[in-house]
Amino acid sequence: MDRIPILRMGRFLLVTIQIDLYDRLATNLESDLVQMVNKTGARGVLIDISALSIVDSFMGRILGNIGSMSKIMDAETVVVGMQPAVAITLIELGLELKGVHTALNVEKGMELLQEKIGADDLDDPDEDSAE
Amino acid sequence: MDRIPILRMGRFLLVTIQIDLYDRLATNLESDLVQMVNKTGARGVLIDISALSIVDSFMGRILGNIGSMSKIMDAETVVVGMQPAVAITLIELGLELKGVHTALNVEKGMELLQEKIGADDLDDPDEDSAE
Repeated sequence: MDRIPILRMGRFLLVTIQIDLYDRLATNLESDLVQMVNKTGARGVLIDISALSIVDSFMGRILGNIGSMSKIMDAETVVVGMQPAVAITLIELGLELKGVHTALNVEKGMELLQEKIGADDLDDPDEDSAE
Repeated sequence: MDRIPILRMGRFLLVTIQIDLYDRLATNLESDLVQMVNKTGARGVLIDISALSIVDSFMGRILGNIGSMSKIMDAETVVVGMQPAVAITLIELGLELKGVHTALNVEKGMELLQEKIGADDLDDPDEDSAE
């Protein structure tokens, strides 16, 4: 397999990472995602990593890249489904997953994206977004 | 990897099959799915096979099994994202994917499930469900 499928769900894209990313798979995923964001006008990218028991620095960097690329294309990235052990390891390794949001599961990730997009749609940066 | 992650999305469950199923992976998927349907009260199961370029008779049987098991648990199964070449091969092999519905992509699969559940919710089998 050299491509990870990207599913479109309304205004969001969903990617489920089930195997460790190696070089080409990661590069393909990055380019497929930005193209898909461009083609569909998606406003959010959800990346489910619940199947991963290890997130190393390479994977952390790829997730960060995806977050930054999507941001440029005006889409927010949320990483969901992280296993507790992975969270522990990430912090112990000093990896911070910069540029991406996180949520407990896909549903909460979608809620988070809805909020962020909803806040964007108000189009009034001065307004307090607490609600 | 010996488990395929199952994502909960509202009343539906979503499974993305990205690698060929071997014995244990398939058995685990079946048992995980029925348990998840039981635990969450899900009314529909979406199985995305857009990453598969081959669906053989084993895979066909597993999909059929999942469809039948879910049906007993009062959930409909929709297989989505089938590649055109896979559809051709399935028919040439004489495999029919009995017991599961199919849809072009996840969004259309969700619409199909919504319709089926909506029709169920009317709870009046005599009423014409054309709308």
